[in-house]
Amino acid sequence: MEKKINIGLFGFGTVGRGLYELLRDVPVARIARVCVRCPEKHQHEAPELIFTSDHDDIFNDKDINFIVELIDDADAAYRIVRRALLNRLPVVTGNKKMLARHLPELIDIQKQQNTSLLYDASACGSIPVIRNLEEYYDNDLQISLKGILNGSCNFILSKIFNEGMPREEALALARKLGFLESDPTLDLDGWDSLYKLVILAVHAFGTYVEPDKIFTYGITHMTDGDIRFANEKERRIKLIGHAEKLPDNKLILCVMPQLLSRNKYIYGVEDEFNGVVIKGFFYGKQFLVGRGAGGHPTSSAVLSDIMATRYDYRYRYKRMHCNDIPHFSNDITFRVYLRYNDESDLQLLDFAEISERYDSPGYRYVVGRVRLGRLHEVRDEMARRKLFVAAYPND
Amino acid sequence: MEKKINIGLFGFGTVGRGLYELLRDVPVARIARVCVRCPEKHQHEAPELIFTSDHDDIFNDKDINFIVELIDDADAAYRIVRRALLNRLPVVTGNKKMLARHLPELIDIQKQQNTSLLYDASACGSIPVIRNLEEYYDNDLQISLKGILNGSCNFILSKIFNEGMPREEALALARKLGFLESDPTLDLDGWDSLYKLVILAVHAFGTYVEPDKIFTYGITHMTDGDIRFANEKERRIKLIGHAEKLPDNKLILCVMPQLLSRNKYIYGVEDEFNGVVIKGFFYGKQFLVGRGAGGHPTSSAVLSDIMATRYDYRYRYKRMHCNDIPHFSNDITFRVYLRYNDESDLQLLDFAEISERYDSPGYRYVVGRVRLGRLHEVRDEMARRKLFVAAYPND
Repeated sequence: MEKKINIGLFGFGTVGRGLYELLRDVPVARIARVCVRCPEKHQHEAPELIFTSDHDDIFNDKDINFIVELIDDADAAYRIVRRALLNRLPVVTGNKKMLARHLPELIDIQKQQNTSLLYDASACGSIPVIRNLEEYYDNDLQISLKGILNGSCNFILSKIFNEGMPREEALALARKLGFLESDPTLDLDGWDSLYKLVILAVHAFGTYVEPDKIFTYGITHMTDGDIRFANEKERRIKLIGHAEKLPDNKLILCVMPQLLSRNKYIYGVEDEFNGVVIKGFFYGKQFLVGRGAGGHPTSSAVLSDIMATRYDYRYRYKRMHCNDIPHFSNDITFRVYLRYNDESDLQLLDFAEISERYDSPGYRYVVGRVRLGRLHEVRDEMARRKLFVAAYPND
Repeated sequence: MEKKINIGLFGFGTVGRGLYELLRDVPVARIARVCVRCPEKHQHEAPELIFTSDHDDIFNDKDINFIVELIDDADAAYRIVRRALLNRLPVVTGNKKMLARHLPELIDIQKQQNTSLLYDASACGSIPVIRNLEEYYDNDLQISLKGILNGSCNFILSKIFNEGMPREEALALARKLGFLESDPTLDLDGWDSLYKLVILAVHAFGTYVEPDKIFTYGITHMTDGDIRFANEKERRIKLIGHAEKLPDNKLILCVMPQLLSRNKYIYGVEDEFNGVVIKGFFYGKQFLVGRGAGGHPTSSAVLSDIMATRYDYRYRYKRMHCNDIPHFSNDITFRVYLRYNDESDLQLLDFAEISERYDSPGYRYVVGRVRLGRLHEVRDEMARRKLFVAAYPND
């Protein structure tokens, strides 16, 4: 006989409310209590739920045997998840920023306490990427993982490249539809994709890398010139999280725009969808697409995690226990497109080779090869100078 | 301490050999003995393996604690899998035809004997569709599943529609590359897709339907006129397995060519890849793509299943135990394109409505609405008359 799941829920935003609605239709678990900042603000949305603003009301409730953490604040989320694990309560969380920062510690606690910590909804919303990496692709030799990990940027880029919508209008539409975080730089500068990439790399390669070691550059400084360049080359700009194992067991990680040609699967992932291509030595190329955000798709992923704990499902982090975990490296040179202002920008990036130059009043670019490590060193300065850089693979 | 897996392997064709090669690189399990029709034929391919042609040599070997069945012959496969389950040995099989016919009985035996029967490689090769339906999408309200389930047909159709290759040349190339079964009608007439659809419907909807109740029509009778028609409409013909839940809890199942427009995900699945779109009420649309055939991709799926039994993983067939399992029905009218010879063909199909007619010497077609049940009744006669029919959705 399976035990009834009584959830202590933290947060009642889009995903929390989505979970509440989902459980009304599929009553496989019960929300016993909800902790939010302003209970009075939410009570009318779900009159039958019990709201509180006090964490202790959740943790002291003997009925509650499950914690679901769906709040924005990464620091508060960390305290909640840590406390839950220390109390031996199974936890499902969607907080990618918190996970990207604290994953090694939380994995340790989870193991010591012999409970569950699941978070498939944290990376790519409804797509079960983590679960598949853990359960299905775990016996193969992993080669690479890359994907569109942020639905908001992809929505904006789709509007620009498919519908010819001006950049500012696409941004405004994304904001209007609620696709942008309250702090839009999280999406647009690539930080949201970065956190997801850090989490996915743990499951795909067994390698944990602190987020601030990884080159991350978004689409904030993309201009009409850059869009025109992509269109002329019959490519689309997509914001891509990229992890790839190279010879010598090096693992390259970065988040940056890429100029993708039509023959790439990811080229066709549109709107707020996420799409991930993973490659293994034997299984070959796998491509998974689904909604990366939104209350219902994400809460459906949360519910899948909740229900998995019924049969004591846990991530096994198998790749973290291998002898030959790949080691993170920024030591690679690759081809980029750079829109720049003056020669000092080229010096800043320290190109290994420049193969193409274009110069006109108000729009200058080069195509050439740079070191990923250098890009990472000068990232903030590039942003200050409003340069735009995109990977530009030869294919 | 986990027990070492000692495999008794039946079959040493493409997938069996793929598994052998995979286990050389990732030695997580051991092939103890291989049963094939002609041991001497295979011995040189793997000198260190022990080959036999006698089933008893496998079943009497006390060391063997796992059966992997990868042979072509569905009747022999059934006997092997049944015997293994009755002996309480966990089994992984890839034989879709056998499963599509005997699934209910085998599920019963597997439960009685309290052992594992896994077969993710049987449907869509390397794509973990069954596992995801079982483990991840199992709490949602399932709406539909459709996909390219046969890599050989898709390879041929890709060559025709992307490269303008003549039909006969594409067929010859597929044969040369080993993409066609020894009996090519299995692929071309849709039977292979049918078996996979039957298996997937069990996991997606909980409904088992005997294969011969499902309308199945392939691309054998597709002519240049049909290809031209698709191209003129800017569509592509793909062979699709389709399962969809309708109001009144009806489940529609069919395998037939569809004229797909560019805005469909499946439109872009090329070559020997398989692609499946599954829809749930909450999680929305999910799209999975991967190699549907080939020794290494398929054996990678076989290995995932083998390794899953280490932690006693079993399919739970959750949807089969619901109170409201949808019931199979052919009672639906939908729009098709039909290339025909004379008026008697139109009478044969008994169109509910004809909206478009084209008539020229040697090429006649109608677009209109027919009942799926009628198509199923007259399927063999349609094939005898070499008619070509394709679903032609309004979109």
